Amino acid sequence: MAYRFSDRMAQVPESFLDELFRVSAVPGVISFAGGLPGSVHIDLEGIRDAARAVFAGEGRMALQYSTTDGYLPLREFIADRYRRRLGLPAMPDEIQIVNGSQQCLDLVAKIFLDPGDAVGMERPGYLGAIEAFSLYEPVFHAVPLAGDGPDLDVLARVVREHAPKFFYGIPNSQNPSGQTYSEEKRRGVAEIFEGTETIFYEDDAFGDLFFDGKPRLPVKRYLSGQGIMSGSFSKIVAPGMRIGWIYAPEPILREFNVAKQAADLHSNFLCQVILHRYLSTHDLDAHVTRVSAIYGRQCRLMCDLLDDLMPPGAGHTTPEGGMFLTATLPGGVSSMDVFREGVREGVAVLPGVPFYVDGGGEDVIRLNFSAVGEEEIEEGVRRLARVVRRLV
Amino acid sequence: MAYRFSDRMAQVPESFLDELFRVSAVPGVISFAGGLPGSVHIDLEGIRDAARAVFAGEGRMALQYSTTDGYLPLREFIADRYRRRLGLPAMPDEIQIVNGSQQCLDLVAKIFLDPGDAVGMERPGYLGAIEAFSLYEPVFHAVPLAGDGPDLDVLARVVREHAPKFFYGIPNSQNPSGQTYSEEKRRGVAEIFEGTETIFYEDDAFGDLFFDGKPRLPVKRYLSGQGIMSGSFSKIVAPGMRIGWIYAPEPILREFNVAKQAADLHSNFLCQVILHRYLSTHDLDAHVTRVSAIYGRQCRLMCDLLDDLMPPGAGHTTPEGGMFLTATLPGGVSSMDVFREGVREGVAVLPGVPFYVDGGGEDVIRLNFSAVGEEEIEEGVRRLARVVRRLV
Repeated sequence: MAYRFSDRMAQVPESFLDELFRVSAVPGVISFAGGLPGSVHIDLEGIRDAARAVFAGEGRMALQYSTTDGYLPLREFIADRYRRRLGLPAMPDEIQIVNGSQQCLDLVAKIFLDPGDAVGMERPGYLGAIEAFSLYEPVFHAVPLAGDGPDLDVLARVVREHAPKFFYGIPNSQNPSGQTYSEEKRRGVAEIFEGTETIFYEDDAFGDLFFDGKPRLPVKRYLSGQGIMSGSFSKIVAPGMRIGWIYAPEPILREFNVAKQAADLHSNFLCQVILHRYLSTHDLDAHVTRVSAIYGRQCRLMCDLLDDLMPPGAGHTTPEGGMFLTATLPGGVSSMDVFREGVREGVAVLPGVPFYVDGGGEDVIRLNFSAVGEEEIEEGVRRLARVVRRLV
Repeated sequence: MAYRFSDRMAQVPESFLDELFRVSAVPGVISFAGGLPGSVHIDLEGIRDAARAVFAGEGRMALQYSTTDGYLPLREFIADRYRRRLGLPAMPDEIQIVNGSQQCLDLVAKIFLDPGDAVGMERPGYLGAIEAFSLYEPVFHAVPLAGDGPDLDVLARVVREHAPKFFYGIPNSQNPSGQTYSEEKRRGVAEIFEGTETIFYEDDAFGDLFFDGKPRLPVKRYLSGQGIMSGSFSKIVAPGMRIGWIYAPEPILREFNVAKQAADLHSNFLCQVILHRYLSTHDLDAHVTRVSAIYGRQCRLMCDLLDDLMPPGAGHTTPEGGMFLTATLPGGVSSMDVFREGVREGVAVLPGVPFYVDGGGEDVIRLNFSAVGEEEIEEGVRRLARVVRRLV
């Protein structure tokens, strides 16, 4: 029969992620294409012990339905950590638990966007956000990243001329570029938003993963009622629990809560309770510091190898944290060719194209340095360099 | 500042559920208002053992990111059970895991509905579906339930005149009415849909909970490519894991998968793996038969008490399964008054109004008989009858 799908489904950008995940899973392929935290750094024993304690003490509660906003002790933990680490005046009532911070992308778009509404994006921008927002049929306005944050002139023009419902950015170790906004840019961004009706939607998935262990102050510090933040335990505890959160002003959170209830009633409660138990009995900061230092070494190794092995004309960003960097290919080399040839050579990368809402990215690839160890990074970059040299 | 929310947020029906959950949680209040399975019937020990085995054997995998479609062994279990129990030719590739079947409501609406599209609903219809669909700004067409299923004349007219994208129904032990479609009605419904472009969206949250332990054949048996089914482990294993599924033809599932990936990447993987381990090592059918028999006793007790204690002019449905029934109030008594006075008397009920997309339900209340035991049912119905008698 003929299926009559909604117009919005035609808005989703063509995705080759399925193909990518399939080829990346081929044995022997070293994958820089995914976005996984290193499996060996997940505290399996700690989470196992937390689960055991929950089943012994409050298992029946954790297996029952719960409230849409999420487990209060977990929201208290998150609010308290914002106050302590970042000096944000967060209260538990301003926090809502979601299924990984990807769900914030969907629900924030849902509560704000009518078809044709303007949305500001970084250029390059996070692919998962582009996919989630696209289903609400907005008009994207891309603001180039300039090494230390967005181009403020372009940002000011976009906010002034298009009055986007929100601007979506990742100030800390952005996905895909690995770039971090400077302190000056953060203040500059906040000044542009002040007095407008545009929300700054600050995705902070990587703020815990600075290699130097030092937090950067969020843009929200300068914006309060105009700022939304999202966060995630996926990168710092375990992705498989699918637990993230939104931190937003109360009038926004009220609408968000309505959308969340309609979307899936509440996030999985068993994992919320286990996670809270884990966080109460383990030192998250120490764990995060240890993992960040490892990612930092892996990132530096990857950067050094790219410097040494890639042909002239190639370049790359130099992240201060997170899990990704972008590499620029020498003139004329296509990222799609590098993707296809790379798989044959046993190394998977992510072409830059889908990160650009307004075209571009043909000469850019995203590389992940968190999921694989140092030996694989060394061998993988060697393979990548061979492929790129062949394509020059 | 002024927040510019999307038009869709104005479509959400006024909800007093928050008020309801708050008052229902007051100590001493016997709640027939919720939709919880009985906590005492959750197999805490079995799930605990399954979790222990997962942490010992495959914990690191279960804590990592996974694929959008869900854990393949779990999808195989679900497909196999459809084949075995209901004679449906289900394959794992036609199953996708979601965060409880509520998420199917959101995502099915997302892939099918543009603003103004027609949607067919039962009258009364499931509140959670009304809320989820409303955010996609459809026009609802209500088809009255007539004891043994929808009024076929009205259904035929709605399908012919409005060509709804889909009709949403709960043929087994409907929420809120507790009604079950007769075999004849199922065939009649299928005949109406045949040759049209309207999907039959069959929510089967309660199909396992027939008091006589016998499955009823789904409408999808007669519709194949035109039928979507959703199911859930919330009522038969544990709600806190938030694991449900959709079973749909491949072209629909492909779009559904795009929407699911944008919504939250995938459902919590740890619980998927634990649940699969539990299902592989425990006899779900035996568990479900035992729990259904208990719910059956509780339902019969509630019906008998309503017959004995409610004033003349009151009535109620007589479910064959599930967790709910609806009671009709004597002439002139308002369900909102019963709700408010009930809380004062120590019994919480759910007024019928929000279940009616086109007005009505003022004289109807929904009563849940699964969450509380026999003693509380007895005392609760006594309190309820006192309130209603006072209001006559």
